[in-house]
Amino acid sequence: MTPTDLILSGNRLALSRLLTQVENDTPEGRAALMELFPHTGQAHLIGVTGAPGTGKSSLVNQIALHYRKQGQRVAIVAVDPSSPFTGGAVLGDRVRMRDLAGDPGVFIRSMASRGSLGGLAQTTASVVQVFDAAGFEVILIETVGAGQAEVDIARMAHTTLVVEAPGLGDDVQAIKAGILEIADILVVNKADRPGVENTERALRGMLELAHPVKRVFMHHGQRMEVPGRQADSQTPMWIAPIQRTVATEGTGIPELVEAIARHAAHLRATGDWQARERARIESELEIHIRETLMSRFREDVPDERYQAVLSRLIERQISPWEAVSALLNGRSK
Amino acid sequence: MTPTDLILSGNRLALSRLLTQVENDTPEGRAALMELFPHTGQAHLIGVTGAPGTGKSSLVNQIALHYRKQGQRVAIVAVDPSSPFTGGAVLGDRVRMRDLAGDPGVFIRSMASRGSLGGLAQTTASVVQVFDAAGFEVILIETVGAGQAEVDIARMAHTTLVVEAPGLGDDVQAIKAGILEIADILVVNKADRPGVENTERALRGMLELAHPVKRVFMHHGQRMEVPGRQADSQTPMWIAPIQRTVATEGTGIPELVEAIARHAAHLRATGDWQARERARIESELEIHIRETLMSRFREDVPDERYQAVLSRLIERQISPWEAVSALLNGRSK
Repeated sequence: MTPTDLILSGNRLALSRLLTQVENDTPEGRAALMELFPHTGQAHLIGVTGAPGTGKSSLVNQIALHYRKQGQRVAIVAVDPSSPFTGGAVLGDRVRMRDLAGDPGVFIRSMASRGSLGGLAQTTASVVQVFDAAGFEVILIETVGAGQAEVDIARMAHTTLVVEAPGLGDDVQAIKAGILEIADILVVNKADRPGVENTERALRGMLELAHPVKRVFMHHGQRMEVPGRQADSQTPMWIAPIQRTVATEGTGIPELVEAIARHAAHLRATGDWQARERARIESELEIHIRETLMSRFREDVPDERYQAVLSRLIERQISPWEAVSALLNGRSK
Repeated sequence: MTPTDLILSGNRLALSRLLTQVENDTPEGRAALMELFPHTGQAHLIGVTGAPGTGKSSLVNQIALHYRKQGQRVAIVAVDPSSPFTGGAVLGDRVRMRDLAGDPGVFIRSMASRGSLGGLAQTTASVVQVFDAAGFEVILIETVGAGQAEVDIARMAHTTLVVEAPGLGDDVQAIKAGILEIADILVVNKADRPGVENTERALRGMLELAHPVKRVFMHHGQRMEVPGRQADSQTPMWIAPIQRTVATEGTGIPELVEAIARHAAHLRATGDWQARERARIESELEIHIRETLMSRFREDVPDERYQAVLSRLIERQISPWEAVSALLNGRSK
């Protein structure tokens, strides 16, 4: 069997090897991605994001366990863009391993940024494709933090969970302004803690204040909205529900997984599933184009030339824009 | 007087107009940046980052007030990458305005992401250049959150403050793994709260665990370390101090500003100031190159062609890599 056949047949060792190749962006990895791509498009991609301290890893764990009980194969992609230098994502793994280790229906992959944010999003997209082609029905994409990186990675999902917890500081509202707009489901985890009513009330207030939720994405460099979610459309609108959970005890997990299923059904009924697929694939294409343009630039411009221009820039003999012109306009190809 | 002369002479209206042009990336903005660039390189750029809830905005406020008492002109660039859709940075402004409004020696500019993270870093770099050329001796670059975006923006600074506060959740340590490595000074704000000793002890423990701190940056696509900070070098090492503050009461601010001054003196004494300038300018150049390559791609590829390739990709007739090849290899220039 070819490596691709092995993966399509569910071989874990072949899968693990391919993921490493994809992460290192090897020619073999790219070739396999091309072969596997026609087999993608079957999985439900679920993004889970939220500030540190909300207990995301435990929650993802519990969601995975619940899907396992339903007999579905689950992949977890844990992305940690806040850790550019060290393998911070490994921390959460130990918790995960305890509950999920040894289950052949679960595959976990942790990814830390290696200097380039674009590179991380690109690799995450490819890793998700591999899991999708390998037949995992549910792919949980977990990100740490609540910055633009997380928003970009959340765009890769069909359903996005934003996790909150009581008592995480007093400007929760400020940071949630942007992140709320990507939430399909709001989860108040650690709901056994004091302050849960306040957190839920604050979120509800913000949801009510918010405009009719539209799905915004980038389309060939332009901001676009996914049709079918506007207030004036004929299709019913999805109002993000607030689900309480205590992940460490498994409380609220069945209800949360039920809400995720309702969201998927809503997307399919309204045609938003296709719209999101389109937005998702276009975002991924743009990331690939950016990274490819940059690698070509690095191959095309000799290092001596780059260093000479950089030195003139540092000595302020030329401005950044002049440096860019000097490097890009004299290219060999 | 030309607009550039007006800015060099300290005209606030001209400055405000130019900042808008720079943010919108107009030809006038770019032309002015070229003229102003030789006048840059004088300011001390101070990055302030940390999780939400740490009281960063109040802290930046107080630092600015302290520099004002010393007679220095201060610019504040508040960057909010977590807010791609709405102007979340505006929230913190109200607090700021109360204390600093009407002072001609202070200029505040808030920036929210507009869909592209690279675009935000690029614009932030240009806005900082304008303030530098306009003669602001201190430029405070404040970012919300602790993701890769913040790390990228922190790289623009000579001195980076990472702000922490007691009682912000139980996995503070996990998120700090990466961010600690960019900290020149650690600030424990809200130090009148219970738990301050625990927070400080945790930070100190992590600092001790950490390898000898090296400044890592990207150099023509390669990871590099700034010389002079390795444990085996001849120059003295900078050990990030931990400063306690209560920004709302001004407690600890003089000591913090003193630590910032010591860091600047250390950088100059060891030659690290030049190394950081080089790393800083190279990071900015790379951002400009990335964005320029992408805009050229958008100009070069007709939208119909882009849509045709995208449709084939969405229907999974071709893979993402094949789509990239189709779009990039058949370019007119």
